[in-house]
Amino acid sequence: MQDALLALTRYWTERGAMIVQPMNTEVGAGTANPATMLRVLGPEPWKVAYVEPSVRPDDARYGENPNRIQMHTQYQVILKPEPGDPQQLYLGSLEALGVDTRANDIRFVEDNWAQPAIGAWGLGWEVWLNGMEITQFTYFQAVGGQTLDPVCVELTYGMERILMALQGVGHFKEIAYAPGISYGEAFGQAEYEMSRYYLDDADVATNRRLFEDYAAEAKRMVEAKLPVPAQIYVLKCSHAFNVMDARGAVSTTDRAAAFRTMQRLAREVSELWIEKRAELGHPLGLPTESTPPPLPETGTVPTGPAPLVFEIGVEEMPPHECGNTVAAVREALTTALAGTGLAHGEITVDATPRRVVATVADVAAREEDSRRTVKGPKVAAAYDADGNLTKAAQGFAKGQGVEADQLERLTIDGVEYVGVSSEVTGRPAVEVLAEILPKIVTGLRSEKNMRWNAPGLSFTRPIRWILALLGEAVVPFQVSNMASGRETWVHRNADAPVVAVRAAADFAQVLADNDIVLDTAARRSQIVTGAQELAASVGGVVDIEGEADVVDEVTNLVESPNPILGSFEERYLELPPDILVTVMRKHQRYLPVRNADGALRNHFVAVANGECDRDVVRAGNEAVLRARYEDASFFWRADLQVPPAEFRTRLDKLTFADKLGSMDDRATRIQKLALELAKSVDLTAEELTTLTRAGELAKFDLATEMVVELSKLAGIMAREYAVRAGETPEVATALHEMEMPRSAGAALPMTVPGALLSLADRLDLLAGLFATGAEPKGSSDPFGLRRAALGALAVLRAHPRLASITIPAGLALAAAQQPVEVPADAMEKAAAFTTGRYEQALLDAGHPHKLVQAVLPLADSPARADATLATLPALVADENFAALVEAVLRIRRLVPADVTAGHDAAKFEDPAENALADALAKAQAELGENPSDLPAFVAVGTGLVAPIHAFFDAVLVMAPDPAVKANRLGLLAGVRDLSEGLVGWEALA
Amino acid sequence: MQDALLALTRYWTERGAMIVQPMNTEVGAGTANPATMLRVLGPEPWKVAYVEPSVRPDDARYGENPNRIQMHTQYQVILKPEPGDPQQLYLGSLEALGVDTRANDIRFVEDNWAQPAIGAWGLGWEVWLNGMEITQFTYFQAVGGQTLDPVCVELTYGMERILMALQGVGHFKEIAYAPGISYGEAFGQAEYEMSRYYLDDADVATNRRLFEDYAAEAKRMVEAKLPVPAQIYVLKCSHAFNVMDARGAVSTTDRAAAFRTMQRLAREVSELWIEKRAELGHPLGLPTESTPPPLPETGTVPTGPAPLVFEIGVEEMPPHECGNTVAAVREALTTALAGTGLAHGEITVDATPRRVVATVADVAAREEDSRRTVKGPKVAAAYDADGNLTKAAQGFAKGQGVEADQLERLTIDGVEYVGVSSEVTGRPAVEVLAEILPKIVTGLRSEKNMRWNAPGLSFTRPIRWILALLGEAVVPFQVSNMASGRETWVHRNADAPVVAVRAAADFAQVLADNDIVLDTAARRSQIVTGAQELAASVGGVVDIEGEADVVDEVTNLVESPNPILGSFEERYLELPPDILVTVMRKHQRYLPVRNADGALRNHFVAVANGECDRDVVRAGNEAVLRARYEDASFFWRADLQVPPAEFRTRLDKLTFADKLGSMDDRATRIQKLALELAKSVDLTAEELTTLTRAGELAKFDLATEMVVELSKLAGIMAREYAVRAGETPEVATALHEMEMPRSAGAALPMTVPGALLSLADRLDLLAGLFATGAEPKGSSDPFGLRRAALGALAVLRAHPRLASITIPAGLALAAAQQPVEVPADAMEKAAAFTTGRYEQALLDAGHPHKLVQAVLPLADSPARADATLATLPALVADENFAALVEAVLRIRRLVPADVTAGHDAAKFEDPAENALADALAKAQAELGENPSDLPAFVAVGTGLVAPIHAFFDAVLVMAPDPAVKANRLGLLAGVRDLSEGLVGWEALA
Repeated sequence: MQDALLALTRYWTERGAMIVQPMNTEVGAGTANPATMLRVLGPEPWKVAYVEPSVRPDDARYGENPNRIQMHTQYQVILKPEPGDPQQLYLGSLEALGVDTRANDIRFVEDNWAQPAIGAWGLGWEVWLNGMEITQFTYFQAVGGQTLDPVCVELTYGMERILMALQGVGHFKEIAYAPGISYGEAFGQAEYEMSRYYLDDADVATNRRLFEDYAAEAKRMVEAKLPVPAQIYVLKCSHAFNVMDARGAVSTTDRAAAFRTMQRLAREVSELWIEKRAELGHPLGLPTESTPPPLPETGTVPTGPAPLVFEIGVEEMPPHECGNTVAAVREALTTALAGTGLAHGEITVDATPRRVVATVADVAAREEDSRRTVKGPKVAAAYDADGNLTKAAQGFAKGQGVEADQLERLTIDGVEYVGVSSEVTGRPAVEVLAEILPKIVTGLRSEKNMRWNAPGLSFTRPIRWILALLGEAVVPFQVSNMASGRETWVHRNADAPVVAVRAAADFAQVLADNDIVLDTAARRSQIVTGAQELAASVGGVVDIEGEADVVDEVTNLVESPNPILGSFEERYLELPPDILVTVMRKHQRYLPVRNADGALRNHFVAVANGECDRDVVRAGNEAVLRARYEDASFFWRADLQVPPAEFRTRLDKLTFADKLGSMDDRATRIQKLALELAKSVDLTAEELTTLTRAGELAKFDLATEMVVELSKLAGIMAREYAVRAGETPEVATALHEMEMPRSAGAALPMTVPGALLSLADRLDLLAGLFATGAEPKGSSDPFGLRRAALGALAVLRAHPRLASITIPAGLALAAAQQPVEVPADAMEKAAAFTTGRYEQALLDAGHPHKLVQAVLPLADSPARADATLATLPALVADENFAALVEAVLRIRRLVPADVTAGHDAAKFEDPAENALADALAKAQAELGENPSDLPAFVAVGTGLVAPIHAFFDAVLVMAPDPAVKANRLGLLAGVRDLSEGLVGWEALA
Repeated sequence: MQDALLALTRYWTERGAMIVQPMNTEVGAGTANPATMLRVLGPEPWKVAYVEPSVRPDDARYGENPNRIQMHTQYQVILKPEPGDPQQLYLGSLEALGVDTRANDIRFVEDNWAQPAIGAWGLGWEVWLNGMEITQFTYFQAVGGQTLDPVCVELTYGMERILMALQGVGHFKEIAYAPGISYGEAFGQAEYEMSRYYLDDADVATNRRLFEDYAAEAKRMVEAKLPVPAQIYVLKCSHAFNVMDARGAVSTTDRAAAFRTMQRLAREVSELWIEKRAELGHPLGLPTESTPPPLPETGTVPTGPAPLVFEIGVEEMPPHECGNTVAAVREALTTALAGTGLAHGEITVDATPRRVVATVADVAAREEDSRRTVKGPKVAAAYDADGNLTKAAQGFAKGQGVEADQLERLTIDGVEYVGVSSEVTGRPAVEVLAEILPKIVTGLRSEKNMRWNAPGLSFTRPIRWILALLGEAVVPFQVSNMASGRETWVHRNADAPVVAVRAAADFAQVLADNDIVLDTAARRSQIVTGAQELAASVGGVVDIEGEADVVDEVTNLVESPNPILGSFEERYLELPPDILVTVMRKHQRYLPVRNADGALRNHFVAVANGECDRDVVRAGNEAVLRARYEDASFFWRADLQVPPAEFRTRLDKLTFADKLGSMDDRATRIQKLALELAKSVDLTAEELTTLTRAGELAKFDLATEMVVELSKLAGIMAREYAVRAGETPEVATALHEMEMPRSAGAALPMTVPGALLSLADRLDLLAGLFATGAEPKGSSDPFGLRRAALGALAVLRAHPRLASITIPAGLALAAAQQPVEVPADAMEKAAAFTTGRYEQALLDAGHPHKLVQAVLPLADSPARADATLATLPALVADENFAALVEAVLRIRRLVPADVTAGHDAAKFEDPAENALADALAKAQAELGENPSDLPAFVAVGTGLVAPIHAFFDAVLVMAPDPAVKANRLGLLAGVRDLSEGLVGWEALA
């Protein structure tokens, strides 16, 4: 281990880095060291490397977990400004560490870094060594809320992981630390004891006080304009917070407040640092301006139609950006070419993670010549009565630089104008392309863009080279600090990683010779075929359809797919498949191998990028998976020792939110609320039994080690553990379903007990947090209330048997359970918030604004609103309905809300009144007593339209005689009441 | 700088050291890192090296001081067990750093390390590179109150100092840290800002709270049996304390309390660690047992008288131990030889810092043969009436293993015994010497002894080799894990540092050939001559007599004296000579060069050890002195800007002690108290003026930068600054004298105003701290009250004009000034404490116990007690005095204390009564009214002896008639009263 640290230190000092010491206060990462945190700010160049023992109280595992330790060793490098070739430099450092980069599969896998607590973010990758993350590679974009200029690269090596891989050991304790001393022998005791401190023994009140004291001291130092001590106290804050957090003593509210404090301090410190460095005149100097290389030699320009190849070389793009970028380049290039006079053939664009390549067939050697015409004033306005040029026409001629006698007459749309036309000679293709291609580069954008050391460019990852060949000629241009050329970069392991391409026509062959599969579909199919062959070799299959997401992602993670079959010990198959598959897909992007019946096998397919030593890469990937499964097994076995009911009681150790008690309190509220809600639902006895028991165990799995570790498995583990603890399948299902839907649009509870628990869960969250004033503000929604509201709506919309539960009623029941005084208007706000989500969901689903508005009054019962909405498109297309709407609205606008229905036929003065009263009576009879729905009303309501209009034509509602007037309003109110609550009539106008 | 750290890391890893990271919480030194603090405990081997940025808030100087920084970089090495050759290993590391150990003067200068706050101590050296301390080299003996076994070596390199020396720069900011980046550029801002924090801006209340919180957490972790987190919190305590201290917010009481807390915690943590490591079965193993090398070949044994050379090779002994060790070895060898039958000539012993050498001339080849006689029963008891052996004699014969007829007759003191005698053959000299010499080694002891990796040995520094040659033969023996031999170690730079000596006779020549001057007197004279010659070369002299201490010390710091003349810039001569000389003597062991009139010149003589590049060594020493003088100059100039009265007001910023206010409050009390005390003294008007003004400025210099930095200059700087601020010389002298005596036996105030201030100072300290219960307990005396008491006594003893001031009266006046309620018995305790010091001082001065006891009753006025004591030796030798004592005691024992003197001659019944009454009247008349002293009383008292005895012979004091009895007691009481208060009569019995 120490040799590895020395090797890195030697490597980076040889490359001009300064070496500093680890921070002398606890930090969670090398990033926190002022040598990063402060030095990346401002313009001064900075190139530094250092070791940073990084403390993560949350990762404490008593030294028992093979990979997880409370203090791990980071090796941190900052290159500011980013040097243009940081990936190459990085790979060199791996070689210095003894990693054979040709034998191993090294990958740059998208990983965007953000630390909101310090207002920092960056884009980059986690670097994988045979499937194991060994380095975080980030282009910092902002720190302390300050945009960084220049941008720097941060490399963070996870030394224990690298060493475990290099030494081929399975547990951190087995790492040879120094000659004759293992990591465990040297640091095992500290690992155990510090775990004890962080997980069990740290005094929460003390650490809370420390947090406050540190924060106050940081604030004082900011006021004293001393960013250095201020930053140290921010770090101390952060550690004290982490200790409290590891002790489970941080509620969501606490967390939000602490983050606000730290964020503000970090911002102030950063501003102050920048200010101070400027005051000191930037002692370390300023970065040198980067200038683009000279324009390339164009070479032999084609004289006839020739193919164009335009390659934009990029550091590994995130998989989902590949497709977007292809589309964007195709669009931009098509449009740009269309704006020129260049004749050309088919445009093809495709991409790998490292390149976007556009080819255009048969590009003409030059633009066609053309006539350019400019329109002037109308002829009528161009000459005065004497036939002389008017001022306007003279001005036009002068503006075009022509003499009066050079004006022509043009007829456009039958009107005559004066005008000017001239012959335009088409430019050579290279000239035209040299103008449009750089604009495509500068115009590239992605969902999330970054800057790097290339002024004027902004894209998902740095653009590093541009190949632009028209036939044998280079299309010569400069973009930012790059110039176009004929070189392409192939696999980094190739004997010649940079290849000069003779001509556009050769380009495809150059890629093919280097095993680079540019065609995305071909790449995908190569992966699919390879994976199936490998699976078949062990008598299994890969469910390509089921794994489509992973296959798509992997396709855009490699240029030269190289599927490799790996295995894991069969014993891990005892774990629930959900766990195994989640780990394979989510963490490792492996394809699980199954039997024909879908049962998991102990094999997987990993897809390496390009040539490598397959045995080494297989072994590496297997080791990573083994470690992950070992973790999971450990938790699984540990959790099975504890009955669910026991876990349930342990929820009292988990703080939920400020004023709202523990997670146990919350689970109890959900349990009670679900039973309350069930009263409006016609449950079978079996359902009630299930609901009652599931309620007793609600959320128990939050206390299991597995869920503490992999929170995504909440609910899933509840089901697995419940079944194994002898609960009925129905109870297990209900427990599983109460965590559904897991995200917007995800699967919903299928059973009514599950739906009730899910609903109760979400209503409790909404009620509690609105009651305590913790509703979302601005774009911040730390408690996920938007998701909760959407979930509640989705459950109600999916379960007709819950139709009688309305949002306000549900919230009222939830409010009654809260341990706090609920302010009068809090539940109204919560209901309105939920309705707002519903409205948004409908709009997002593409429903017309008008129709959405029309059903919003029914949103308290979203299932009913849905049903109504479903009928509206047909109705609004119907003229009869339009007439009905008009008639109903005529009444609704006229009749005050406080008028009650009822009339006395004796007071009728006109037959139109009788006719309407009869029609009303008939309609009422047809609709019956029960609350109606819109289609039913429409069916009978159309019969009312004519009588209504006749009524209005015949009588004056606002008659002078008050009794008559009241009688007429009462009659109309009868009609109104029939239409009431069916739809938002006003919206339909 | 970073290259230097890498070079050390490479060097030590190549020698098997493990590398760990700096501590991730602030520490004052690498020692605090658990890699030292905990790992040195218990038996497990441990070899580690690491960088430690060490935070010393007290050393913060805003980055302005060239050498003093709040965070300096230590490089720390621990070798456990100590490897036997740590000095060689260390010198190798200097070479690795690029230090040419042959060109430079590298010295191991005694420096004993102790950190009471963590119950730790060790013995070792500061390593000097051309006069600059660059490394602390310590054999740890105890940590956390635990005795260390095995003992380890700690090496602490001060990197900034080493780098400044290697790079030849004068300010830490100029160190080249990395290529193109200076130390100042990289860390200047942090140095300034952290200085601001530590010196000006840290919140005291917050840091106090942090201290308490950390201490509580440490305690909890000790209780939880988790030494690792507990130790971390002890470190945090320590840092919080240091921050408060740098802010000047720590009173002496606070300090004592904090140290107690930290000491206790450190002890508990240490115990716990040892216990835990044992529980874990000592994961790092146990040290291998060291075995001594085989006995050496003896070689050719002399057949006639031959010289013996016995050399004990030692790592550099502290200078003052050289002489003691020589004496001890001479004594031990003489005694041991006397106990053998070996004839021998003169015994000579001498030493250098690295060796003690005994030579014995003409040691016989063997012991002389002798007869051994054993005495049995008296002849009378050995034979019965029949002339047969008695049982007793038979038993004796059997016990001696002889037959009855082998018993002989012996006459001892004229009595006849039976006995046994036998011929004892003398053993060969090598055999005898092999028996006694190892005992001399094992018996070596010094004032302060250490252990190292040599079982059974204990001495001031490790013993590393033993040469024992009798003629050409090696006297073969083993001691601990060493064996004797014929090798001696000469200067480490010699081409052959280890020399095999052919024969004892060659030894002196071997040393001489290697320039090692064994003869201490010769060495001293070589230094003296060399220094005078060098001084003369610039027309100056060295005051050898005045510098005797330094000369003596230097004599025992080198083996091969090499005096070198250095210079400093003349401008530093503007500083007071006291400063210049203090720095030269105390810090550097340089001899100041003066003019014939004693005025300082800008030259000095340093004494290097052995051959070196004199220019390099001179330049190095000059640079060190320049840096020190630069510091001093800076303070001097800064202090001169501020008038003394202004400094005096700033004393209110310095806390004195708990409940006793600030240093300003204390100075005010001293001022008032001195004037109060002066009322009993007959001051001239001038003296009163002086006292008044000096009192107003009392202790002002404690606020000056110079004294803050060099506390030893307190008083001296007061004088210098006062004179320059225009105060009278008398005031300046009084201010100087108030700090006298500086230590036991040191110079005393010469003027009465100075004496009064000195006395007031010490009485205030005693009164205040006894009043607040802070008196010394056990061996701890954090406030130096023993020294204060001795000082007060010394002043009173030296100044007859202060005779009327008694200790209790002075304390009472002091008590009246205290800002606290003074408990009733506190001043009695303080007075008793002071008397106790007086008693001890007299005993230490060699006065007989009896006489000391006799004058103790007068100790309240120590001058008077002294005077009486001076008369006692003559008196007690005088028979008349003995008779007087007997007579006085006879009365004192008889007469109850409540009897008052007085008699009625009318009630006399016997002439003896009249005679005694007459004698008493005569004596009273002669002595007059005034309180008498002992000699005066003795002069008249002898006339009373006869009447007293006659009185007792003639009458019965306890007469049956109460009136007679009372009259007689009254008469005797008259005599008693005359004797009262003159001496402790009882002690003279």
